Amino acid sequence: MNPTISPRTDTRWWGWGDPDVETDVGARVRELLNLRGLEIDPSGLDQVRSIEAVAIPEAKRIPDAVLAAAGADWVLTDHDSRVRHATGQSLEDLLTLRSGVVPTAPDAVVIGRDGAQILAVLEAASRERVAIIPYGGGTSVTGGLKVPEGIDRPVISLDTIGLDGVEVDPISRTGRLGAGLRGPEAEEAVNRFGLTTGHFPQSWEYATIGGFAATRSAGQASNGYGRFDEMITGLDVVTPDGVLRTPRVEHAAEGPSLLDLVIGSEGAFGVITEVEMRLAPIPDTSYVVWLLPDFESGIDCVMKMAQRDALPAVVRLSDRTETSLNLAMSGPAGVAGAALDAYLGARGRSDGCLMIVGYEGEPGENASGKSDTNSLLGRAGGIRLGARPGEAWARSRFHGPYLREGLLDLGLVVETFETAAPWSEYVDAYVSIRDATLAALERNGMAGELLCHLSHAYPDGASLYFTLVSTPGARGPVESWIAVKGAVLEELLELDLPVSHHHGIGRDHAAAYARRVDQVGLEALDATKRSVDPAGIMNPGCLLPMSFHHTP
Amino acid sequence: MNPTISPRTDTRWWGWGDPDVETDVGARVRELLNLRGLEIDPSGLDQVRSIEAVAIPEAKRIPDAVLAAAGADWVLTDHDSRVRHATGQSLEDLLTLRSGVVPTAPDAVVIGRDGAQILAVLEAASRERVAIIPYGGGTSVTGGLKVPEGIDRPVISLDTIGLDGVEVDPISRTGRLGAGLRGPEAEEAVNRFGLTTGHFPQSWEYATIGGFAATRSAGQASNGYGRFDEMITGLDVVTPDGVLRTPRVEHAAEGPSLLDLVIGSEGAFGVITEVEMRLAPIPDTSYVVWLLPDFESGIDCVMKMAQRDALPAVVRLSDRTETSLNLAMSGPAGVAGAALDAYLGARGRSDGCLMIVGYEGEPGENASGKSDTNSLLGRAGGIRLGARPGEAWARSRFHGPYLREGLLDLGLVVETFETAAPWSEYVDAYVSIRDATLAALERNGMAGELLCHLSHAYPDGASLYFTLVSTPGARGPVESWIAVKGAVLEELLELDLPVSHHHGIGRDHAAAYARRVDQVGLEALDATKRSVDPAGIMNPGCLLPMSFHHTP
Repeated sequence: MNPTISPRTDTRWWGWGDPDVETDVGARVRELLNLRGLEIDPSGLDQVRSIEAVAIPEAKRIPDAVLAAAGADWVLTDHDSRVRHATGQSLEDLLTLRSGVVPTAPDAVVIGRDGAQILAVLEAASRERVAIIPYGGGTSVTGGLKVPEGIDRPVISLDTIGLDGVEVDPISRTGRLGAGLRGPEAEEAVNRFGLTTGHFPQSWEYATIGGFAATRSAGQASNGYGRFDEMITGLDVVTPDGVLRTPRVEHAAEGPSLLDLVIGSEGAFGVITEVEMRLAPIPDTSYVVWLLPDFESGIDCVMKMAQRDALPAVVRLSDRTETSLNLAMSGPAGVAGAALDAYLGARGRSDGCLMIVGYEGEPGENASGKSDTNSLLGRAGGIRLGARPGEAWARSRFHGPYLREGLLDLGLVVETFETAAPWSEYVDAYVSIRDATLAALERNGMAGELLCHLSHAYPDGASLYFTLVSTPGARGPVESWIAVKGAVLEELLELDLPVSHHHGIGRDHAAAYARRVDQVGLEALDATKRSVDPAGIMNPGCLLPMSFHHTP
Repeated sequence: MNPTISPRTDTRWWGWGDPDVETDVGARVRELLNLRGLEIDPSGLDQVRSIEAVAIPEAKRIPDAVLAAAGADWVLTDHDSRVRHATGQSLEDLLTLRSGVVPTAPDAVVIGRDGAQILAVLEAASRERVAIIPYGGGTSVTGGLKVPEGIDRPVISLDTIGLDGVEVDPISRTGRLGAGLRGPEAEEAVNRFGLTTGHFPQSWEYATIGGFAATRSAGQASNGYGRFDEMITGLDVVTPDGVLRTPRVEHAAEGPSLLDLVIGSEGAFGVITEVEMRLAPIPDTSYVVWLLPDFESGIDCVMKMAQRDALPAVVRLSDRTETSLNLAMSGPAGVAGAALDAYLGARGRSDGCLMIVGYEGEPGENASGKSDTNSLLGRAGGIRLGARPGEAWARSRFHGPYLREGLLDLGLVVETFETAAPWSEYVDAYVSIRDATLAALERNGMAGELLCHLSHAYPDGASLYFTLVSTPGARGPVESWIAVKGAVLEELLELDLPVSHHHGIGRDHAAAYARRVDQVGLEALDATKRSVDPAGIMNPGCLLPMSFHHTP
């Protein structure tokens, strides 16, 4: 790569993705939201239209020793680079960017070139009391990239974009991939060997291999290929204390898993520079859509498939609210359109729950699985809507984040949160979380719709993914959302369920995470951090709350 | 349980298992070994025939505060209990027991009753400088239970036999099991719900749930159900610093995995008291045996099955040496017998490699898998020997360890070691390890046979399990074996392969393990240990070498 070119300039600076992609949610959705009492304000939420006009704090000086370790050509201090590395993509981040006032930003961006340079930077930063925030694709939705307010020392955003190596073992079907490769770059590189990563989270177009590992990412086809944390067979992490390369060949009885200690560490221990992972043959794919009578019967079907070890690679079941919004969408993110309404009317079905079922495998591999799934869903009262809406979903599977921009433009806030629950508690958890969220909306003067889907299933339980679309609330969009999210986290802690299924901890969940992990576990993690990061420079306040070992 | 009854008295004190089970290897094997130049000495290796006659060091005094924390009824200090808790089941352990002189033994045995009592014991032991060696089923083959020589303080063997709770969630198909349950006890408890653990290592009859977790065990059907470390969804570990209960619901993006930090910790961090694990429906099973032309063609078939995600629950492929010994065995551990020889003769095949293929699943579930496997193995030149020898294998699957007693009785030493390798290096690794082992035998004046099988496969590689049968060597059986094992470990380190696939680290692999895990990783593990075990009392010298944080 050419280090003199500022990276990450191919995306909207104020939000998600390619600036040329349309973000309008479409007339039918607007109408539906209006019908449901969500007051649409076509002037939208505040938006400063130029990155030059965004206010960020003046940069602190980076000590020369740190700049020298990075190499002058690999350091960016321009306004645009600092703004672009100041946030991720959470609702709070987007509202902050749109407001034109970004309260904290890194003082410089260092482009990571290789492990040796990164180690030199971390060693110098440890001596010079400079904090380091590792930056992959910038898609964190949990505050993982945010410079903490009140920090009294320089902060560097260490962008892994220069780590782009690719080595493939086509016989063992593994690849050693540079942490800075974005999803499509990694995919293209391994496709040349007839292989796929099989990892396609909604953030895939921009998120990086290192980010997937650092946050325990789960892709849309995780039922088929596993979560990203399950695909990883080894990795290198550069810590201030030196390089940790996990022991080669993970199928072993060799003590506690150092691999699983680094996976999910979100930059608090070091910078993941290389990831070795399992790959799979490029599959034949087919996606079909079913309409189940209700959420409960759909859940029961997914449980049966998961427990029979007969889960299609993709299974995505929407509750009724999400289904009605999906059906209203005729654009790239919709599965249906008016023709489908007519079809359903003719079958006497005006509501229900959409289920996307995606098969990925070698030709013929899924034949018996498909027929079993068809009988199961048919017996549960499902109507097979066929492959056309399924393929429409597949084409639009990375489009979701764009819609958030469109909804913000309508003056609505939209955010997601996710957890997982055992099957025996699944429906109760769904109801409790939904009730708690709706009650919090009401308390905060917000009118909203709460959508939910199940998209990652396991023999013992499944994920719950909620999307909230609502009016901004009386206290303003940021404060109102923080209040609602706080109520959600309390409910999850009360139910003893994860505070995240695949978005991670970041800074937004750090306090709740500390309550999930009891004191003994938290102290053990802190001890690990002190060992690899004695000066406490790595990603202060991310994963472990600021009260733990971080730069004072 | 009744604490006044000494536990673990239903086994041979000098070796494996039920004293009433026959250990003779049979005339055909004796003859074959003789033919191959292994000099059989029917007087066998030394054996003291009475536990009373075994010499152990005098017991150090256990401080009163520790005894009080345990509860007087839960402390055993009698000679038999001390001998029975002094070793595991490694070759070195067995030879030591047979010699009648056991150089180190615990000073007392504490029967673990529940988490609160164990915490009280660990707290008192931390204050009083008493070392604790957690003891599950006593089946360690890596020195995990051995009191280190020269330790200057009292040592307690903490036997988890009292931890026998069972709670099952039949909907989510998970169970919370007491760590002290032996394999059959756990299995019987969950069978009542129509479920199975799916975990059947060769040590199953005596090893415990806690031991499986502490050592990253892998069962014979791990292809179908996963390794034990993959089945675990949560656990409680009592550390000197307090109880660590891992966060509920493991399918989450909640930071580094505390679960995988405790799994494999081999008692160095604390005592695992409860394990929550996935369960599966009790399957229909069928086992068939095939004969492949050679090891390489069999390996290629297993790789294809693993990479197609079409692995039968059990796949066990023996190399030619192991095959010839297996075919010679007509007793409970043999798959064949004379009738089979005749059959093979008639088919014009006098050698080859046996493959056991076991299907476990719901009725009908494996139909298409079976037919695919049959075609694959047939195309590779395999001959299907049918279900009768397969069922014979299944009946005798836990009998292997008894044969070791029989071989020791013939004056031969026998031991196993295992590793794993990527598919791209598998055959080369097999040849290198075999060559290195045979060269070490020769250097040490030992005449031996080296058997190998592949029994655990993954999409990216598989295990290699070696069994050595040899004459004792000029320096005596223990010293000679230690020299050979040292050469094996050097070869594994040279090949950059695991020092164990499923036996664990214990004390015997601790130094080699420290070389596998680089300095940064070792320091991180040591930091974790210092955090949970500040006084360094937990299993000194096990997992981490004595030079790391242990009682000084």
